[in-house]
Amino acid sequence: MCNHCVIENVKQNMLSRRSLFKGMAFAGAAVAAGGVSSPVLAQQTAGKVVDLTHAYDESFPTFDGNPGIEYEWAVEFAGNGYQLHKLTIFEHTGTHIDAPFHFSADGKSVDQIEPQQLVAPLAIIDITDRAKEDANATVEAADVEAWISANGEIPEGAVVALRSGWAKKVSEPAFRNDGEGKFAFPGFGKSATDLLATLNVAAIGVDTLSLDPGNSADFAVHNSWLPGGRYGIECLNNLEELPVSGATIMVGAPKHKRGTGGPARVLALV
Amino acid sequence: MCNHCVIENVKQNMLSRRSLFKGMAFAGAAVAAGGVSSPVLAQQTAGKVVDLTHAYDESFPTFDGNPGIEYEWAVEFAGNGYQLHKLTIFEHTGTHIDAPFHFSADGKSVDQIEPQQLVAPLAIIDITDRAKEDANATVEAADVEAWISANGEIPEGAVVALRSGWAKKVSEPAFRNDGEGKFAFPGFGKSATDLLATLNVAAIGVDTLSLDPGNSADFAVHNSWLPGGRYGIECLNNLEELPVSGATIMVGAPKHKRGTGGPARVLALV
Repeated sequence: MCNHCVIENVKQNMLSRRSLFKGMAFAGAAVAAGGVSSPVLAQQTAGKVVDLTHAYDESFPTFDGNPGIEYEWAVEFAGNGYQLHKLTIFEHTGTHIDAPFHFSADGKSVDQIEPQQLVAPLAIIDITDRAKEDANATVEAADVEAWISANGEIPEGAVVALRSGWAKKVSEPAFRNDGEGKFAFPGFGKSATDLLATLNVAAIGVDTLSLDPGNSADFAVHNSWLPGGRYGIECLNNLEELPVSGATIMVGAPKHKRGTGGPARVLALV
Repeated sequence: MCNHCVIENVKQNMLSRRSLFKGMAFAGAAVAAGGVSSPVLAQQTAGKVVDLTHAYDESFPTFDGNPGIEYEWAVEFAGNGYQLHKLTIFEHTGTHIDAPFHFSADGKSVDQIEPQQLVAPLAIIDITDRAKEDANATVEAADVEAWISANGEIPEGAVVALRSGWAKKVSEPAFRNDGEGKFAFPGFGKSATDLLATLNVAAIGVDTLSLDPGNSADFAVHNSWLPGGRYGIECLNNLEELPVSGATIMVGAPKHKRGTGGPARVLALV
């Protein structure tokens, strides 16, 4: 993304946030005075909620190529007046979390991620143009440094997401494979995640199937980032709707005990 | 909760939010000037994230009494260097969503709930004292009116939660049953939800197993609220940590297609 576009995005984001503050401050004053609190609604509508989650079912692409979810009716509507499914879900399906426990025998399970790490500033590193030329394009340390030069420091506890344009391919074979059927999609390079670890970033996110690029031979990022006690988010959607700086991400990680991760609802406020 | 406590809570919440605004505005200015954006961190730490979600496993209480989740290793760590589960999950397990499709043959499934309805002002109606005397205590229209008199209007799109103190019983038989083994827990009365529907509230939430009280014979709230296109949240945790007015709820509803609901990650910012 060009510098001009970055600046324009930040400006627009600030304008939106200033309306938000105004609404929130007014709401606070109204509540304190015992008056109506409907301006709180302005607080909600002035900010835009962007859904970073793909809707998924049996057809959603998975890393191993098998369906990630299966449905069975546990109770059917006819004769009961209500209905519910028994689901079979492989943890790493859809827009989902990789907990440290996914790549370490004793790391934090998904329920043990601190709630404070689930609501965070979101920094987006855009490599869409590069990914058009190279399906296995990576974010490297130099990209992180360029982002910082353009946008300022990445705060501790932030989530840093790679934006490659891949989410738009989710219904095509190209989301997962090249023309010869080999894995091919963008990911993080270890030089980038090693740098992000020193900045105490909470999580990294990708709009592809894996934190590592499709042609990774050693899952170097999975094998270093996750055992380091940090988490990852895979298969993010709609990052194109966000500025590269200024959004807040809300990561609705599942909370089953002993989980290595799982399908999540990820939203952003901008 | 006494009026004095309500006022104190609101005051404290406002103070917290004002620090938040200050941090956010400063962050915006720093970013615009091309300076460091670390004050964005203040934006995150000035506000408190409260986790409204129970961690759950096979032992978590369910409505039908059967385990709501089962685990099987799909890939084991030994020999692979990573691990993941194949989970069997009944949709209405743990802290979870009831989508309209749960109680209507053609209602919105959980993936169809508007993202804008998942980030909302949270109003809490406290009936803890009453629930100590009557395990099947309900929130009725008069309680909603009393909340409005004390705290101001409930904005459109809000989430209204019942707080009964039941979350603290989650590991005891009393979370679900009375001494004779009959369902017994607080819930919403239909007079309350009929009123909330006229106010265009997005969702109701409970810290118990069901939107209807344990002794409900007809699931009147499920049968009217959900087919009306609104959603519910059951088994909320930690509502005691929030003021009755002023918090923002973030509902990480699952996003599997055709879902009648499912385990969710629910957070609040205060």
